[in-house]
Amino acid sequence: MSATDSKAATDIAVTTGALPASRKVWVDGAQDGVRVPFREIDLHPTAEEPPLRVYDTSGPYTDPEVRIDIAAGLPRLREGWIAARGDTESYAGRPVLPVDNGNVGDSHAAPVFAACPTPRRAKPGRRVSQLAYARAGIVTPEMEFVAIRENLGRAEAAAKARDGEAFGAEIPDQVTSEFVRDEIARGRAIIPANINHPEAEPMIIGRNFLVKVNANIGNSAVTSSVAEEVDKMVWAIRWGADTVMDLSTGRNIHTTREWILRNSPVPIGTVPIYQALEKVGGIAEELTWEVYRDTLIEQAEQGVDYFTIHAGVRLPYIPLTAERVTGIVSRGGSIMAKWCLAHHRESFLYTRFAEICEIMAAYDISFSLGDGLRPGSIADANDAAQFAELETLGELTKVAWDQDVQVMIEGPGHVPMHKIKANMDKQLATCGEAPFYTLGPLTTDIAPGYDHITSAIGAGMIGWFGTAMLCYVTPKEHLGLPDRNDVKTGMVAYKIAAHAADLAKGHPAAQARDDALSRARFEFRWEDQFNLSLDPETARDFHDRTLPKEAHKVAHFCSMCGPKFCSMQISHEVRAHARSNSAPFGEQAVAEAEQGMAEKAAEFRAGGGEIYTEVDKPAAE
Amino acid sequence: MSATDSKAATDIAVTTGALPASRKVWVDGAQDGVRVPFREIDLHPTAEEPPLRVYDTSGPYTDPEVRIDIAAGLPRLREGWIAARGDTESYAGRPVLPVDNGNVGDSHAAPVFAACPTPRRAKPGRRVSQLAYARAGIVTPEMEFVAIRENLGRAEAAAKARDGEAFGAEIPDQVTSEFVRDEIARGRAIIPANINHPEAEPMIIGRNFLVKVNANIGNSAVTSSVAEEVDKMVWAIRWGADTVMDLSTGRNIHTTREWILRNSPVPIGTVPIYQALEKVGGIAEELTWEVYRDTLIEQAEQGVDYFTIHAGVRLPYIPLTAERVTGIVSRGGSIMAKWCLAHHRESFLYTRFAEICEIMAAYDISFSLGDGLRPGSIADANDAAQFAELETLGELTKVAWDQDVQVMIEGPGHVPMHKIKANMDKQLATCGEAPFYTLGPLTTDIAPGYDHITSAIGAGMIGWFGTAMLCYVTPKEHLGLPDRNDVKTGMVAYKIAAHAADLAKGHPAAQARDDALSRARFEFRWEDQFNLSLDPETARDFHDRTLPKEAHKVAHFCSMCGPKFCSMQISHEVRAHARSNSAPFGEQAVAEAEQGMAEKAAEFRAGGGEIYTEVDKPAAE
Repeated sequence: MSATDSKAATDIAVTTGALPASRKVWVDGAQDGVRVPFREIDLHPTAEEPPLRVYDTSGPYTDPEVRIDIAAGLPRLREGWIAARGDTESYAGRPVLPVDNGNVGDSHAAPVFAACPTPRRAKPGRRVSQLAYARAGIVTPEMEFVAIRENLGRAEAAAKARDGEAFGAEIPDQVTSEFVRDEIARGRAIIPANINHPEAEPMIIGRNFLVKVNANIGNSAVTSSVAEEVDKMVWAIRWGADTVMDLSTGRNIHTTREWILRNSPVPIGTVPIYQALEKVGGIAEELTWEVYRDTLIEQAEQGVDYFTIHAGVRLPYIPLTAERVTGIVSRGGSIMAKWCLAHHRESFLYTRFAEICEIMAAYDISFSLGDGLRPGSIADANDAAQFAELETLGELTKVAWDQDVQVMIEGPGHVPMHKIKANMDKQLATCGEAPFYTLGPLTTDIAPGYDHITSAIGAGMIGWFGTAMLCYVTPKEHLGLPDRNDVKTGMVAYKIAAHAADLAKGHPAAQARDDALSRARFEFRWEDQFNLSLDPETARDFHDRTLPKEAHKVAHFCSMCGPKFCSMQISHEVRAHARSNSAPFGEQAVAEAEQGMAEKAAEFRAGGGEIYTEVDKPAAE
Repeated sequence: MSATDSKAATDIAVTTGALPASRKVWVDGAQDGVRVPFREIDLHPTAEEPPLRVYDTSGPYTDPEVRIDIAAGLPRLREGWIAARGDTESYAGRPVLPVDNGNVGDSHAAPVFAACPTPRRAKPGRRVSQLAYARAGIVTPEMEFVAIRENLGRAEAAAKARDGEAFGAEIPDQVTSEFVRDEIARGRAIIPANINHPEAEPMIIGRNFLVKVNANIGNSAVTSSVAEEVDKMVWAIRWGADTVMDLSTGRNIHTTREWILRNSPVPIGTVPIYQALEKVGGIAEELTWEVYRDTLIEQAEQGVDYFTIHAGVRLPYIPLTAERVTGIVSRGGSIMAKWCLAHHRESFLYTRFAEICEIMAAYDISFSLGDGLRPGSIADANDAAQFAELETLGELTKVAWDQDVQVMIEGPGHVPMHKIKANMDKQLATCGEAPFYTLGPLTTDIAPGYDHITSAIGAGMIGWFGTAMLCYVTPKEHLGLPDRNDVKTGMVAYKIAAHAADLAKGHPAAQARDDALSRARFEFRWEDQFNLSLDPETARDFHDRTLPKEAHKVAHFCSMCGPKFCSMQISHEVRAHARSNSAPFGEQAVAEAEQGMAEKAAEFRAGGGEIYTEVDKPAAE
């Protein structure tokens, strides 16, 4: 590495280190190198509970033992697994061309990633996708990895009754490698895992697994830099992003993506038409299959794990959007619509779909079939254009599956609550249960600046109904490019939606974290309450703004009610009293309690005079 | 007014002035003095649209013509209506006692509100509630007021097809005064309107009307002052609070409430047990019916419009909470539970319920029957304690109705999505369709700091299912007392939930604002998009952070995509092209478009070379 590169690397600052009270732990699989990371949150000794183990998307960045070197990239976890299969070959690859970075001049060129690896592709005649292996009955290390990852907490939960409404999802009590293999073979789940992105820790997207969240990042012609985007990626996974989409559209697009991929432990998705459009100077009519194909190869060799491809925007559907309130709001959709009209032909994404599949199969890139005609307003939800495209996405799913290519389907958009379930039901029926990947949906149009909330409502609901991955929406939606704070806010809003969906679907171990946090709350273990939350820093900060003293972290009240009105504290007395009564608390409890409690009143009163310990009293206001 | 009072008054600063591009307008009713305020948002002339009229909770504070004088209080809008009915009398009232303000010493005493009005009560034998009038077939000015208020936009919407799923709600195409009267007579809606709070502009809470939002404010023993609370009240209604609850528990509780009531144009609710507990030094066991009754009279004379009363916390239900993860989390519920156990008797709220009703009927105070046993965690949702109490609330509703007292029912709390609808269904069945008033519910416990979002998901859903009013939750829930920013954030989150619910229920005119904003978005009317949003300031601020120049406010792109990737801009071309094709856009559009469009391709391409006007181009990054 040259001195310049070193400097470039140090210019990229990312957030590292463990989250509060958290340690990284690993569970080993049976196959070589399968070592699945989790985060364990330590609780206060008075809890008398083991640490809570949670799903961990953050990669090596939260491991204090690892020295992060952005210029070198992450360890290549899957390299050995891929090589061991013997069905791929390394090759020289396509040279990087000036047009790949928008013909950017030296003065604006981003520093290149020096340690670019040599790309691999399938040997002639081989299909190297997880779908191909699953159909052949092979349990890959990737499948075992995600089985262990998804199985989190289920052994402990096995004794509890299942609770939830899964709307036909088939969520197992225990996730086995064989279950994972079968779900992939049936097309109901995907593991996005380009052979050229061996840095990624395998994860699975499917209705019968935990609901996932994608974070969008990416520069635009107007703003943002390489360092900012790498930082946003690391920041997004710190807060739980399961995948990240690089939606860059400006210059340095190839270089930006290289830095992101080499440093990302989560799958990376892109929309290749964005870069293809840059290559033809931003003029949609000038797009050709050759430019697009070249872009697919370029990104395949870099390691992009899934491609959003708007192949369902067919020429005859475009007039269906003409009377809409907001027309076509998908960037990719509108670009292809413009091309279709200009040439008056079906788009090459549709006519060349089989050829696209061939490329995807050679690298194990998954389709994210784009909903280019998704509604951009409440008025346009569930209209003819949207559902016509969905039918086509269903057809294309089958074409992709015929070539062993993994598929998920993108969904809307802006949809009022009463029209959300129809989207899920139609997608399941039309697309053979391929995983659904939805943007929100936003349940009203009237709150720009708060669309993480308008859409968290829709995301929670559609996640419950069966969406496998939620694409986050940040507060800047419709208004500007998200910054670091927006990324975090969007992520937390969507982790809430995804978790609420997991709870409602009845994922066996989902409630463990709610229960642990609620016990901490009830027992006034403030530090545990902060540490168990999705965003410990904010929870602690909010608490400290009204009760900043350390002593208050053990106070048996909070500033909401003050010491005299603390319902939780009173509840402890109630509980103690009720227990001392030795009454059973089953079906007959009401009647029995009514009879048995009279003589306890005086006793309780005598013993319960003062419930607030002096040491915890706050200063008078 | 003395100089001290002047000084005191000027110490209380509130936010006044119109919202951006907004004017106050009024619609006159047939009855004397019925003059219903609305806000009209002016649009850019290029929109060629009339101003959008929206519901306005903000009272005189957003009317630039009104001089606000906090020390004098608001005009007494309903005074003439109340007097004209001839069924009430003024009387000396209960003197204010030192204990009413927690025996606060001079050094900590808040300045008193000098212009305290003389209280009124029903003449002997008269019941002066809106329910009594409705049952007698009388359409009061209050009923006409809310009919006009609720009818907003319905004339314009009459031509459109209704769209929504109302789950049995009977939402009319047009809201008439007679419809309002009938809904109140049936107990399905309430107008909280204490005769001693004539400053309030009438509003209605019921499943067949627009979904409302309550904002909680109030000091605690630990923090906050009178001026802060008045400011929060005015701030909350500026952002759309339909009612405000003063949950103060500290000292100066009587004085704080007086300032709030005299300056509030929305109904004010309280939880009288909080003040009663203060009067007995914070010792729950010392509470008596006499102290409680005295507190009811005190607050009735001040003008509190609805009382939360936890009369459903019956002694035999308390043991049902003993095995809960979070016990009893309602402050009022836990206080009463402690009292019940200490005395081993049913609470006086239950045994004296008929006497409470008599007081409420004499002032037209509405019940908000408190859910003292609501779940405080996902684990405790929909349990035996919660539903046992709900049955009792149903019984008590009938007792109140027998005495012509208006009733709404409070609901949870913490409930996972799949258990929300059962709450609504059970409440409707058990409580004779009395309006439901729910806190959230929070759909997961794991995100302290973001509980406005965890609960907006549940609030949107339960509002759709039939909840009449949503009690907001702020980001500080579980952590601290909300400040001004938290109040606004909570309000916007809940206006989103309420509006999403109105849309999904199919309120005839709800979508007008979404459509107007979406048209503005599609036509790049940035200023209109900001002004039509729930929070224009934040929307504008977020936009300006990436594209600050004034020129960009007319730009035909935004920073998310930049000029080349603007889907909306491309859509305009698509629309123009499709329209020029003269193809019909009905059911056969797909087939016809396929046939008819071929020859248009060259034409489109020739005309569409450059779509971005030079003047709008941003500076290179």
